[in-house]
Amino acid sequence: MSQNKLPTSSEDGVARAAGRPRSDASHRAILEAAHAILVETGLKSFSIEAVASRAGVARTTIYRWWPDKSMLVNESFLNAFQPQINFTGTDSPSDDFRSFLASLAKALSGPDGRIAASVVAQAQSDPETQRMFLEEFSTPLRRHSAALLQAGINRGQFRPDLNVSRVLDAAIGAVYLRLLLGQTLGRSWVREMADTILHGCYADKPGQAEGGTVRSRPAE
Amino acid sequence: MSQNKLPTSSEDGVARAAGRPRSDASHRAILEAAHAILVETGLKSFSIEAVASRAGVARTTIYRWWPDKSMLVNESFLNAFQPQINFTGTDSPSDDFRSFLASLAKALSGPDGRIAASVVAQAQSDPETQRMFLEEFSTPLRRHSAALLQAGINRGQFRPDLNVSRVLDAAIGAVYLRLLLGQTLGRSWVREMADTILHGCYADKPGQAEGGTVRSRPAE
Repeated sequence: MSQNKLPTSSEDGVARAAGRPRSDASHRAILEAAHAILVETGLKSFSIEAVASRAGVARTTIYRWWPDKSMLVNESFLNAFQPQINFTGTDSPSDDFRSFLASLAKALSGPDGRIAASVVAQAQSDPETQRMFLEEFSTPLRRHSAALLQAGINRGQFRPDLNVSRVLDAAIGAVYLRLLLGQTLGRSWVREMADTILHGCYADKPGQAEGGTVRSRPAE
Repeated sequence: MSQNKLPTSSEDGVARAAGRPRSDASHRAILEAAHAILVETGLKSFSIEAVASRAGVARTTIYRWWPDKSMLVNESFLNAFQPQINFTGTDSPSDDFRSFLASLAKALSGPDGRIAASVVAQAQSDPETQRMFLEEFSTPLRRHSAALLQAGINRGQFRPDLNVSRVLDAAIGAVYLRLLLGQTLGRSWVREMADTILHGCYADKPGQAEGGTVRSRPAE
Protein backbone atom coordinates (compact mmCIF):
# COMPACT_ATOMS: atom_id res chain seq x y z
CA MET A 1 0.00 0.00 0.00
CA SER A 2 1.30 3.40 -0.97
CA GLN A 3 2.07 5.76 1.86
CA ASN A 4 -0.26 8.19 0.14
CA LYS A 5 -3.22 5.95 0.84
CA LEU A 6 -5.11 5.90 4.09
CA PRO A 7 -4.34 2.90 6.27
CA THR A 8 -7.30 0.54 6.50
CA SER A 9 -8.71 -0.13 9.90
CA SER A 10 -7.40 -3.70 9.76
CA GLU A 11 -3.88 -2.33 9.35
CA ASP A 12 -4.56 -0.10 12.31
CA GLY A 13 -5.29 -3.25 14.23
CA VAL A 14 -8.93 -2.38 14.91
CA ALA A 15 -10.45 -5.35 13.17
CA ARG A 16 -7.84 -7.80 14.42
CA ALA A 17 -8.87 -7.23 17.99
CA ALA A 18 -10.48 -10.67 18.22
CA GLY A 19 -6.96 -12.08 18.39
CA ARG A 20 -7.18 -14.90 15.85
CA PRO A 21 -5.20 -14.78 12.62
CA ARG A 22 -7.44 -14.13 9.67
CA SER A 23 -7.86 -15.95 6.47
CA ASP A 24 -7.03 -13.16 4.05
CA ALA A 25 -9.21 -14.66 1.34
CA SER A 26 -12.26 -14.92 3.61
CA HIS A 27 -11.58 -11.47 5.00
CA ARG A 28 -11.49 -9.92 1.55
CA ALA A 29 -14.52 -11.91 0.39
CA ILE A 30 -16.56 -10.71 3.37
CA LEU A 31 -15.59 -7.06 2.88
CA GLU A 32 -16.37 -7.22 -0.82
CA ALA A 33 -19.70 -8.98 -0.24
CA ALA A 34 -20.64 -6.43 2.42
CA HIS A 35 -19.77 -3.55 0.12
CA ALA A 36 -21.72 -5.04 -2.80
CA ILE A 37 -24.80 -5.42 -0.56
CA LEU A 38 -24.46 -1.84 0.70
CA VAL A 39 -24.29 -0.59 -2.88
CA GLU A 40 -27.24 -2.68 -4.02
CA THR A 41 -29.65 -2.42 -1.12
CA GLY A 42 -28.37 0.36 1.14
CA LEU A 43 -27.66 0.46 4.83
CA LYS A 44 -31.23 -0.13 6.04
CA SER A 45 -31.49 -3.56 4.43
CA PHE A 46 -27.95 -4.61 5.28
CA SER A 47 -27.68 -7.84 7.27
CA ILE A 48 -24.93 -10.20 8.40
CA GLU A 49 -26.99 -13.11 7.04
CA ALA A 50 -26.93 -11.63 3.53
CA VAL A 51 -23.18 -11.01 3.72
CA ALA A 52 -22.48 -14.55 4.97
CA SER A 53 -24.55 -16.03 2.16
CA ARG A 54 -22.91 -13.90 -0.52
CA ALA A 55 -19.36 -14.42 0.75
CA GLY A 56 -19.90 -18.16 1.28
CA VAL A 57 -18.83 -18.11 4.94
CA ALA A 58 -20.56 -18.93 8.21
CA ARG A 59 -22.18 -16.09 10.14
CA THR A 60 -20.01 -17.03 13.11
CA THR A 61 -16.91 -16.30 11.00
CA ILE A 62 -18.16 -12.76 10.41
CA TYR A 63 -19.15 -12.22 14.03
CA ARG A 64 -15.75 -13.41 15.23
CA TRP A 65 -14.04 -10.61 13.29
CA TRP A 66 -16.78 -7.96 13.38
CA PRO A 67 -18.73 -8.38 16.63
CA ASP A 68 -21.02 -5.53 15.63
CA LYS A 69 -22.74 -5.06 12.26
CA SER A 70 -21.80 -1.39 12.12
CA MET A 71 -18.09 -2.33 12.36
CA LEU A 72 -18.44 -4.40 9.20
CA VAL A 73 -20.36 -1.64 7.43
CA ASN A 74 -17.66 0.82 8.37
CA GLU A 75 -14.70 -1.32 7.35
CA SER A 76 -16.24 -2.44 4.06
CA PHE A 77 -17.03 1.19 3.18
CA LEU A 78 -13.53 2.39 4.08
CA ASN A 79 -11.96 -0.53 2.22
CA ALA A 80 -13.73 0.55 -0.99
CA PHE A 81 -13.59 4.31 -0.44
CA GLN A 82 -10.06 5.04 0.73
CA PRO A 83 -8.12 3.82 -2.33
CA GLN A 84 -10.14 6.33 -4.43
CA ILE A 85 -8.76 9.36 -2.57
CA ASN A 86 -5.70 11.01 -4.01
CA PHE A 87 -3.19 12.27 -1.46
CA THR A 88 -0.27 12.36 -3.87
CA GLY A 89 2.21 15.12 -3.16
CA THR A 90 3.96 16.75 -6.12
CA ASP A 91 5.92 19.98 -6.37
CA SER A 92 2.64 21.93 -6.68
CA PRO A 93 0.70 21.85 -3.41
CA SER A 94 -2.22 23.77 -4.96
CA ASP A 95 -2.52 21.17 -7.73
CA ASP A 96 -2.31 18.45 -5.08
CA PHE A 97 -5.15 20.05 -3.14
CA ARG A 98 -7.22 20.26 -6.33
CA SER A 99 -6.55 16.58 -7.05
CA PHE A 100 -7.47 15.62 -3.48
CA LEU A 101 -10.76 17.56 -3.61
CA ALA A 102 -11.61 16.20 -7.05
CA SER A 103 -10.98 12.62 -5.93
CA LEU A 104 -13.10 13.10 -2.79
CA ALA A 105 -15.97 14.57 -4.81
CA LYS A 106 -15.73 11.85 -7.45
CA ALA A 107 -15.67 9.03 -4.87
CA LEU A 108 -18.71 10.50 -3.11
CA SER A 109 -20.57 11.02 -6.40
CA GLY A 110 -20.83 7.29 -6.90
CA PRO A 111 -22.43 4.52 -4.83
CA ASP A 112 -19.96 5.11 -1.99
CA GLY A 113 -21.47 8.58 -1.60
CA ARG A 114 -24.88 7.04 -0.91
CA ILE A 115 -23.28 4.72 1.65
CA ALA A 116 -21.42 7.63 3.29
CA ALA A 117 -24.64 9.68 3.42
CA SER A 118 -26.56 6.83 5.05
CA VAL A 119 -23.77 6.24 7.58
CA VAL A 120 -23.85 9.95 8.50
CA ALA A 121 -27.64 9.71 8.74
CA GLN A 122 -27.41 6.72 11.06
CA ALA A 123 -24.75 8.53 13.12
CA GLN A 124 -27.39 11.11 14.12
CA SER A 125 -29.19 8.53 16.24
CA ASP A 126 -26.31 6.14 16.96
CA PRO A 127 -23.31 7.55 18.88
CA GLU A 128 -21.15 4.49 18.13
CA THR A 129 -21.60 4.95 14.38
CA GLN A 130 -20.78 8.63 14.81
CA ARG A 131 -17.63 7.78 16.76
CA MET A 132 -16.49 5.28 14.16
CA PHE A 133 -17.18 7.67 11.29
CA LEU A 134 -15.25 10.42 13.04
CA GLU A 135 -12.27 8.30 14.09
CA GLU A 136 -11.92 5.93 11.16
CA PHE A 137 -13.16 8.01 8.23
CA SER A 138 -12.91 11.70 9.05
CA THR A 139 -9.74 11.81 11.13
CA PRO A 140 -7.45 9.91 8.72
CA LEU A 141 -8.92 11.80 5.74
CA ARG A 142 -8.08 15.09 7.46
CA ARG A 143 -4.64 13.97 8.59
CA HIS A 144 -3.56 13.03 5.07
CA SER A 145 -5.08 16.09 3.38
CA ALA A 146 -3.63 18.37 6.06
CA ALA A 147 -0.19 17.10 5.03
CA LEU A 148 -0.81 18.44 1.51
CA LEU A 149 -1.68 21.90 2.86
CA GLN A 150 1.27 21.84 5.25
CA ALA A 151 3.57 21.05 2.32
CA GLY A 152 2.21 24.19 0.63
CA ILE A 153 3.07 26.25 3.69
CA ASN A 154 6.54 24.70 3.91
CA ARG A 155 7.21 25.48 0.25
CA GLY A 156 6.02 29.08 0.64
CA GLN A 157 3.11 28.69 -1.79
CA PHE A 158 0.59 29.02 1.05
CA ARG A 159 0.71 31.66 3.77
CA PRO A 160 2.51 30.66 6.97
CA ASP A 161 -0.47 31.55 9.20
CA LEU A 162 -2.90 29.36 7.22
CA ASN A 163 -5.36 27.61 9.53
CA VAL A 164 -5.16 24.15 8.01
CA SER A 165 -7.96 22.68 10.14
CA ARG A 166 -10.42 25.39 9.20
CA VAL A 167 -9.53 25.11 5.49
CA LEU A 168 -10.33 21.40 5.69
CA ASP A 169 -13.58 22.12 7.56
CA ALA A 170 -14.56 24.37 4.66
CA ALA A 171 -13.47 22.09 1.82
CA ILE A 172 -14.71 18.76 3.21
CA GLY A 173 -17.82 20.40 4.70
CA ALA A 174 -18.77 21.85 1.33
CA VAL A 175 -18.49 18.43 -0.32
CA TYR A 176 -20.52 16.79 2.44
CA LEU A 177 -23.28 19.38 2.52
CA ARG A 178 -23.81 19.03 -1.21
CA LEU A 179 -23.84 15.25 -0.94
CA LEU A 180 -26.43 15.34 1.87
CA LEU A 181 -28.64 17.81 -0.01
CA GLY A 182 -28.64 15.48 -3.03
CA GLN A 183 -26.81 17.94 -5.27
CA THR A 184 -24.28 16.93 -7.89
CA LEU A 185 -20.53 17.12 -7.25
CA GLY A 186 -19.50 17.78 -10.84
CA ARG A 187 -16.15 18.88 -12.22
CA SER A 188 -17.05 22.55 -12.61
CA TRP A 189 -18.31 22.70 -9.02
CA VAL A 190 -15.07 21.11 -7.77
CA ARG A 191 -12.96 23.53 -9.81
CA GLU A 192 -14.84 26.56 -8.49
CA MET A 193 -14.70 25.21 -4.93
CA ALA A 194 -10.94 24.63 -5.14
CA ASP A 195 -10.41 28.11 -6.66
CA THR A 196 -12.42 29.70 -3.84
CA ILE A 197 -10.63 27.82 -1.06
CA LEU A 198 -7.15 28.24 -2.55
CA HIS A 199 -7.66 31.99 -3.00
CA GLY A 200 -7.53 32.30 0.77
CA CYS A 201 -4.50 30.01 1.09
CA TYR A 202 -1.87 31.62 -1.12
CA ALA A 203 0.96 33.55 0.44
CA ASP A 204 0.66 37.31 -0.12
CA LYS A 205 2.55 38.44 -3.14
CA PRO A 206 4.07 41.88 -3.53
CA GLY A 207 1.35 44.37 -4.40
CA GLN A 208 -1.34 41.96 -3.25
CA ALA A 209 -1.71 42.74 0.44
CA GLU A 210 -5.13 41.42 1.26
CA GLY A 211 -7.68 43.86 2.53
CA GLY A 212 -5.71 46.88 1.38
CA THR A 213 -6.88 50.01 3.11
CA VAL A 214 -10.49 48.90 3.36
CA ARG A 215 -9.95 46.49 6.17
CA SER A 216 -7.93 46.39 9.28
CA ARG A 217 -7.26 42.91 10.55
CA PRO A 218 -8.85 42.53 13.98
CA ALA A 219 -6.47 41.83 16.80
CA GLU A 220 -6.86 38.35 18.25
CA MET B 1 -41.23 41.19 10.34
CA SER B 2 -37.86 42.68 9.58
CA GLN B 3 -36.70 42.33 6.02
CA ASN B 4 -33.57 40.81 7.47
CA LYS B 5 -35.51 37.76 8.63
CA LEU B 6 -36.28 34.81 6.44
CA PRO B 7 -39.91 34.66 5.32
CA THR B 8 -41.75 31.78 6.96
CA SER B 9 -43.27 29.18 4.72
CA SER B 10 -46.76 30.34 5.68
CA GLU B 11 -45.95 33.80 4.35
CA ASP B 12 -44.67 32.17 1.22
CA GLY B 13 -48.11 30.67 0.86
CA VAL B 14 -46.91 27.07 1.24
CA ALA B 15 -48.91 26.25 4.35
CA ARG B 16 -52.00 28.16 3.28
CA ALA B 17 -52.53 25.89 0.33
CA ALA B 18 -55.57 24.23 1.96
CA GLY B 19 -57.50 27.41 1.16
CA ARG B 20 -59.16 28.06 4.52
CA PRO B 21 -58.27 31.10 6.61
CA ARG B 22 -56.31 30.08 9.66
CA SER B 23 -56.91 30.77 13.26
CA ASP B 24 -53.65 32.51 14.08
CA ALA B 25 -53.80 31.41 17.72
CA SER B 26 -54.32 27.75 16.84
CA HIS B 27 -51.68 27.97 14.14
CA ARG B 28 -49.13 29.34 16.55
CA ALA B 29 -50.10 26.89 19.28
CA ILE B 30 -49.63 23.94 16.92
CA LEU B 31 -46.23 25.13 15.68
CA GLU B 32 -45.05 25.74 19.23
CA ALA B 33 -46.34 22.38 20.46
CA ALA B 34 -44.71 20.62 17.52
CA HIS B 35 -41.39 22.35 18.20
CA ALA B 36 -41.50 21.53 21.92
CA ILE B 37 -42.11 17.85 21.13
CA LEU B 38 -39.26 17.81 18.61
CA VAL B 39 -36.93 19.32 21.22
CA GLU B 40 -38.03 16.91 23.94
CA THR B 41 -38.37 13.61 22.11
CA GLY B 42 -36.71 14.08 18.71
CA LEU B 43 -37.94 13.40 15.22
CA LYS B 44 -38.33 9.63 15.54
CA SER B 45 -40.96 9.86 18.29
CA PHE B 46 -42.78 12.82 16.75
CA SER B 47 -46.50 12.24 16.11
CA ILE B 48 -49.50 14.33 15.08
CA GLU B 49 -51.43 12.82 18.02
CA ALA B 50 -48.93 14.19 20.51
CA VAL B 51 -48.98 17.63 18.88
CA ALA B 52 -52.81 17.73 18.86
CA SER B 53 -52.93 16.77 22.52
CA ARG B 54 -50.33 19.34 23.54
CA ALA B 55 -51.79 22.18 21.46
CA GLY B 56 -55.37 21.37 22.52
CA VAL B 57 -56.66 21.02 18.97
CA ALA B 58 -58.24 18.21 16.99
CA ARG B 59 -55.99 16.09 14.81
CA THR B 60 -58.17 17.00 11.84
CA THR B 61 -57.29 20.67 12.40
CA ILE B 62 -53.63 19.82 12.04
CA TYR B 63 -54.14 17.59 9.01
CA ARG B 64 -56.19 20.30 7.27
CA TRP B 65 -53.22 22.67 7.42
CA TRP B 66 -50.35 20.18 7.26
CA PRO B 67 -51.49 17.18 5.20
CA ASP B 68 -48.15 15.49 5.81
CA LYS B 69 -46.32 15.12 9.14
CA SER B 70 -43.02 16.16 7.61
CA MET B 71 -44.56 19.49 6.53
CA LEU B 72 -45.39 20.26 10.15
CA VAL B 73 -41.92 19.20 11.32
CA ASN B 74 -40.38 21.43 8.71
CA GLU B 75 -42.51 24.51 9.42
CA SER B 76 -42.22 24.25 13.20
CA PHE B 77 -38.43 23.93 12.91
CA LEU B 78 -38.16 26.90 10.53
CA ASN B 79 -40.52 28.95 12.70
CA ALA B 80 -38.17 28.52 15.68
CA PHE B 81 -34.87 28.55 13.79
CA GLN B 82 -35.15 31.42 11.35
CA PRO B 83 -35.56 34.31 13.83
CA GLN B 84 -32.22 33.27 15.40
CA ILE B 85 -30.24 33.96 12.23
CA ASN B 86 -28.72 37.41 11.87
CA PHE B 87 -28.79 38.84 8.35
CA THR B 88 -28.39 42.44 9.45
CA GLY B 89 -26.47 44.58 7.01
CA THR B 90 -24.23 47.32 8.41
CA ASP B 91 -21.46 49.34 6.79
CA SER B 92 -19.02 46.48 7.46
CA PRO B 93 -19.86 43.46 5.28
CA SER B 94 -17.08 41.39 6.89
CA ASP B 95 -18.55 42.03 10.34
CA ASP B 96 -21.99 41.18 8.96
CA PHE B 97 -20.69 37.88 7.63
CA ARG B 98 -19.09 37.12 11.01
CA SER B 99 -22.41 37.88 12.75
CA PHE B 100 -24.32 35.70 10.31
CA LEU B 101 -21.95 32.75 10.78
CA ALA B 102 -21.94 33.16 14.57
CA SER B 103 -25.74 33.23 14.68
CA LEU B 104 -25.99 30.13 12.48
CA ALA B 105 -23.50 28.24 14.65
CA LYS B 106 -25.20 29.34 17.85
CA ALA B 107 -28.67 28.37 16.61
CA LEU B 108 -27.40 24.94 15.56
CA SER B 109 -25.54 24.42 18.84
CA GLY B 110 -28.82 24.24 20.71
CA PRO B 111 -31.82 21.91 20.44
CA ASP B 112 -32.60 23.18 16.94
CA GLY B 113 -29.25 21.75 15.85
CA ARG B 114 -30.37 18.27 16.92
CA ILE B 115 -33.62 18.78 14.99
CA ALA B 116 -31.75 20.01 11.91
CA ALA B 117 -29.38 17.03 12.10
CA SER B 118 -32.26 14.55 12.36
CA VAL B 119 -34.07 16.20 9.45
CA VAL B 120 -30.91 15.92 7.32
CA ALA B 121 -30.61 12.29 8.45
CA GLN B 122 -34.20 11.56 7.44
CA ALA B 123 -33.61 13.34 4.13
CA GLN B 124 -31.11 10.61 3.19
CA SER B 125 -33.92 8.06 2.87
CA ASP B 126 -36.86 10.41 2.14
CA PRO B 127 -36.64 12.53 -1.03
CA GLU B 128 -39.61 14.71 0.02
CA THR B 129 -37.87 15.69 3.27
CA GLN B 130 -34.71 16.41 1.27
CA ARG B 131 -36.65 18.60 -1.16
CA MET B 132 -38.32 20.55 1.67
CA PHE B 133 -35.03 21.03 3.52
CA LEU B 134 -33.35 22.26 0.35
CA GLU B 135 -36.16 24.59 -0.76
CA GLU B 136 -37.45 25.92 2.54
CA PHE B 137 -34.33 25.89 4.74
CA SER B 138 -31.21 25.93 2.60
CA THR B 139 -32.32 28.13 -0.31
CA PRO B 140 -33.66 31.09 1.76
CA LEU B 141 -30.67 30.87 4.13
CA ARG B 142 -28.32 31.11 1.17
CA ARG B 143 -30.29 33.86 -0.55
CA HIS B 144 -30.17 36.14 2.50
CA SER B 145 -26.52 35.43 3.37
CA ALA B 146 -25.53 35.86 -0.28
CA ALA B 147 -26.92 39.40 -0.05
CA LEU B 148 -24.41 40.15 2.73
CA LEU B 149 -21.51 38.96 0.59
CA GLN B 150 -22.82 40.83 -2.46
CA ALA B 151 -22.97 44.02 -0.38
CA GLY B 152 -19.27 43.48 0.41
CA ILE B 153 -18.50 43.20 -3.31
CA ASN B 154 -20.57 46.32 -4.07
CA ARG B 155 -18.74 48.30 -1.40
CA GLY B 156 -15.35 47.17 -2.65
CA GLN B 157 -14.42 45.32 0.55
CA PHE B 158 -14.67 41.94 -1.21
CA ARG B 159 -13.11 41.15 -4.56
CA PRO B 160 -15.39 41.64 -7.57
CA ASP B 161 -14.83 38.10 -8.87
CA LEU B 162 -15.81 36.48 -5.55
CA ASN B 163 -17.80 33.28 -6.12
CA VAL B 164 -20.55 33.93 -3.58
CA SER B 165 -22.17 30.50 -3.98
CA ARG B 166 -18.93 28.63 -3.36
CA VAL B 167 -18.11 30.81 -0.31
CA LEU B 168 -21.50 29.87 1.14
CA ASP B 169 -20.93 26.18 0.32
CA ALA B 170 -17.71 26.41 2.33
CA ALA B 171 -19.08 28.37 5.30
CA ILE B 172 -22.43 26.61 5.70
CA GLY B 173 -20.91 23.23 4.83
CA ALA B 174 -18.29 23.63 7.55
CA VAL B 175 -20.98 24.37 10.15
CA TYR B 176 -23.08 21.43 9.01
CA LEU B 177 -20.27 18.90 8.90
CA ARG B 178 -19.27 19.77 12.46
CA LEU B 179 -22.87 19.52 13.60
CA LEU B 180 -23.30 16.10 11.97
CA LEU B 181 -20.04 14.79 13.43
CA GLY B 182 -21.21 15.81 16.92
CA GLN B 183 -18.48 18.42 17.37
CA THR B 184 -18.97 21.70 19.18
CA LEU B 185 -19.59 24.96 17.35
CA GLY B 186 -17.96 27.25 19.88
CA ARG B 187 -17.02 30.90 19.56
CA SER B 188 -13.34 30.34 18.87
CA TRP B 189 -14.18 27.86 16.12
CA VAL B 190 -16.59 30.35 14.54
CA ARG B 191 -14.00 33.14 14.72
CA GLU B 192 -11.32 30.99 13.10
CA MET B 193 -13.76 29.79 10.44
CA ALA B 194 -14.85 33.35 9.60
CA ASP B 195 -11.20 34.50 9.46
CA THR B 196 -10.32 31.65 7.10
CA ILE B 197 -13.28 32.24 4.78
CA LEU B 198 -12.94 36.05 4.77
CA HIS B 199 -9.23 35.84 3.99
CA GLY B 200 -10.21 34.62 0.52
CA CYS B 201 -12.91 37.26 0.08
CA TYR B 202 -11.09 40.57 0.54
CA ALA B 203 -10.38 42.70 -2.49
CA ASP B 204 -6.76 43.02 -3.51
CA LYS B 205 -5.75 46.67 -3.43
CA PRO B 206 -2.33 46.74 -5.10
CA GLY B 207 -2.42 50.46 -5.87
CA GLN B 208 -3.29 51.46 -2.34
CA ALA B 209 -1.01 48.90 -0.74
CA GLU B 210 1.92 50.06 -2.85
CA GLY B 211 2.36 53.30 -0.94
CA GLY B 212 0.90 52.28 2.40
CA THR B 213 2.01 50.40 5.45
CA VAL B 214 -0.62 47.66 5.25
CA ARG B 215 1.34 45.48 2.88
CA SER B 216 4.04 43.24 4.20
CA ARG B 217 6.36 42.02 1.48
CA PRO B 218 7.14 38.36 2.13
CA ALA B 219 10.70 37.14 1.82
CA GLU B 220 11.09 35.34 -1.49
